[in-house]
Amino acid sequence: MAHILVIGAGRSADALIDYLAKAVQTYEWEMTVADVSTELLNSKLAAYPHVKSLVFDIFDQQQANQVIAKVDLVVSLLPATLHGKVAKYCLENKKHLLTASYLSDEIKAIADEVAQTDLIFLNEMGLDPGIDHMSAMQIIDDIKKQGGKITSFKSYTGGLVAPEYDTNPWKYKFTWIPRNVVLAGAGGTAQYIEKGLYKYIPYHQLFHRIDSIAIDGYGQFEAYANRDSLTYRGAYGLEDIPTMLRGTLRKEDFCRAWAILVDLGLTMDDFEVDTTDMTYRQFFDSFLSEMQPGTTLEKLTYFTGKPMNDPLLQKIVWTGLLDDTPIPIKGSPAAILQHLLEQKWKLADEDKDMIVMQHQFEYSIKGERQMIHSDLVVQGDDQHTAMAKTVGLPLAIAAKLILLKKIQVRGVHIPTHQDIYEPVMEELLSLGIVFREKMSQIS
Amino acid sequence: MAHILVIGAGRSADALIDYLAKAVQTYEWEMTVADVSTELLNSKLAAYPHVKSLVFDIFDQQQANQVIAKVDLVVSLLPATLHGKVAKYCLENKKHLLTASYLSDEIKAIADEVAQTDLIFLNEMGLDPGIDHMSAMQIIDDIKKQGGKITSFKSYTGGLVAPEYDTNPWKYKFTWIPRNVVLAGAGGTAQYIEKGLYKYIPYHQLFHRIDSIAIDGYGQFEAYANRDSLTYRGAYGLEDIPTMLRGTLRKEDFCRAWAILVDLGLTMDDFEVDTTDMTYRQFFDSFLSEMQPGTTLEKLTYFTGKPMNDPLLQKIVWTGLLDDTPIPIKGSPAAILQHLLEQKWKLADEDKDMIVMQHQFEYSIKGERQMIHSDLVVQGDDQHTAMAKTVGLPLAIAAKLILLKKIQVRGVHIPTHQDIYEPVMEELLSLGIVFREKMSQIS
Repeated sequence: MAHILVIGAGRSADALIDYLAKAVQTYEWEMTVADVSTELLNSKLAAYPHVKSLVFDIFDQQQANQVIAKVDLVVSLLPATLHGKVAKYCLENKKHLLTASYLSDEIKAIADEVAQTDLIFLNEMGLDPGIDHMSAMQIIDDIKKQGGKITSFKSYTGGLVAPEYDTNPWKYKFTWIPRNVVLAGAGGTAQYIEKGLYKYIPYHQLFHRIDSIAIDGYGQFEAYANRDSLTYRGAYGLEDIPTMLRGTLRKEDFCRAWAILVDLGLTMDDFEVDTTDMTYRQFFDSFLSEMQPGTTLEKLTYFTGKPMNDPLLQKIVWTGLLDDTPIPIKGSPAAILQHLLEQKWKLADEDKDMIVMQHQFEYSIKGERQMIHSDLVVQGDDQHTAMAKTVGLPLAIAAKLILLKKIQVRGVHIPTHQDIYEPVMEELLSLGIVFREKMSQIS
Repeated sequence: MAHILVIGAGRSADALIDYLAKAVQTYEWEMTVADVSTELLNSKLAAYPHVKSLVFDIFDQQQANQVIAKVDLVVSLLPATLHGKVAKYCLENKKHLLTASYLSDEIKAIADEVAQTDLIFLNEMGLDPGIDHMSAMQIIDDIKKQGGKITSFKSYTGGLVAPEYDTNPWKYKFTWIPRNVVLAGAGGTAQYIEKGLYKYIPYHQLFHRIDSIAIDGYGQFEAYANRDSLTYRGAYGLEDIPTMLRGTLRKEDFCRAWAILVDLGLTMDDFEVDTTDMTYRQFFDSFLSEMQPGTTLEKLTYFTGKPMNDPLLQKIVWTGLLDDTPIPIKGSPAAILQHLLEQKWKLADEDKDMIVMQHQFEYSIKGERQMIHSDLVVQGDDQHTAMAKTVGLPLAIAAKLILLKKIQVRGVHIPTHQDIYEPVMEELLSLGIVFREKMSQIS
């Protein structure tokens, strides 16, 4: 009787637990969900009495080995930095491993050892990375099979709030870790390739250098480049592609307003602001020059060259950054901004989130130039957020298919292999995760 | 018979060695200059047969202790990161220590131990830091003595090329470590205080947020803020001062042109560019968007909003960044830019350098508001560069005065103490390092 261990019962676990809890009933398997928090386990597993719960600390080596020894497959939803540890336990105990995180150097380092076992360590098996790879590879392999040559591939993903709940001027609410959103791009220069030339965008230009994206029925979006679009050329078998970019989507005007905050320095994270007796307005003033007289808003109009009633400036005013309200925390500018935005961009209980993805391919085939746009939109429902569905379901499906031996690929992988993405995408389709494809000729 | 050890015979050692070599003759002391390079020692000491030379490696603990045990006072011209090591040897062997580097945490950590000895460890005893502290403290102490209250203190220093040798459109040549010039400001957000409000300037705004400075007879300069202007409030006894800024001077328009390179991302140092078969123009193109068609220069006019013949853009064209010349090195954008500028901004053998400093004080006294501008200009001559004179002479003078017991302050210090700065500044004056003071009433 197969036994699945899910480690981590946090925000993206719901849809995964629900799917696997049903699967283990169907196939008469066993399932254990482990987490450090008893409360979290109790609330997440109340509806599934047949699923075991386990209070578990990955840093307790003895317990970890004991627990993992008893199961057949581990799905780790722990923070990405802990997956190396889980991978070592899985390798020692000869168990399959699935994660939704980027394939880490730690796991790459044991790839040769994994290859000598009968195991699969499947990484990047969530949404982004995950569904993006699988859906792109379906099209890439298909174009190649037809004899086409791909000249441009751009892929964009965004975690957003669903349109009806889109109730603030930024058309954004936090549906993902706030700190990661506030510091998005700050990790370093973004790199991609365009028309055969490497392109580099320093962080302070990132939200100025945006692409405009339209999704039928959902309006206009803006995209900023992800840090590294170049490494996936190899993974996708597109080593010589002249244009390749991966980016993140926001609603129209978000990036252009966010760029002002970056320009000012409000997302800096390298020093602590002395906020004693300081209001948000004073904090904001600290980033503006005194060369120009006037109110904070007047200084901001001077800094940006935009009029006071400009919608971008009005977004900034709406955040409360220009209010005479005391700042209740200490921290870096980024931490102060995050604290404020966590109140303003809070996803209410009744709010639903939305995942948007668009792949754009250009390719030449039989002397003609073609274009494919492939869009995915998933909205949250009363059961699960779109994020939980799109991160959790690919993992859950793959776990099931591995145990059913319908995925027999072995070794360390990301889901670019047809034998992985084909059955997973087929089942995602049946669960309503459906890409809409539009093909046209480039004149 | 007193014995002085100078460690490091590099670029700023000349004037120091010359001054001390003469002093040891006058006072019948001994002097040893130590360096890892025999060639450097031979060339620097040829004119001073009475000065001993010593091939010396600071990492050789036994040799270091032996050598330092035999002397009375050590002047370290080693890179700043090595001063902690030298300080430990000096403390163990109970010898005075002088450096021109910023007082480091390592030396602060042994301050209590030093205070219990009869030693002085005198740091920041060069130009900037060094002469800036001493000359500022003269005026600060004087204003305080008269009962004045200082409301604003701005202090600017620049290492530049002398006007007659100022032969390129940037009016700049490297007179100091090129990497430090290319990465100036990149270390983090600049912090200062203006009218009682903390001000923060992120690196990408630093060269846009410039002050304009005039020096009589030398024209217009631009200043960008140094990283931390706040810590010196304590050192200068100006804890409650509403406005305090320390900055770096460049000739007019330098900063505004450099800002374009920073904006583009050409000073990024966080990734390596694949320069295989790449020209400078292609490298430059890598930082420009393809949204706008046209030549590289046309894209640059679009990026900056300036016409092609704009003097700022012409400065950039002059560097060769838009030339179709292959890039001969690999490295980060900053390293590639540095390599190119080292050819373009090379100080020729016959060129002379120039040090410029300006202190600006505002204070109130007897109900009136006053202003003092205090300027220093030092040019290189056939014997020594201005940099070598202004860095080396304060160190050399202080070394002499300590051995003559004319400086009797003990403990870890920077030269803000009157008993240090007064005799040193007096002698600097006699050596032609003279501030010109201008006082006026603020209406």
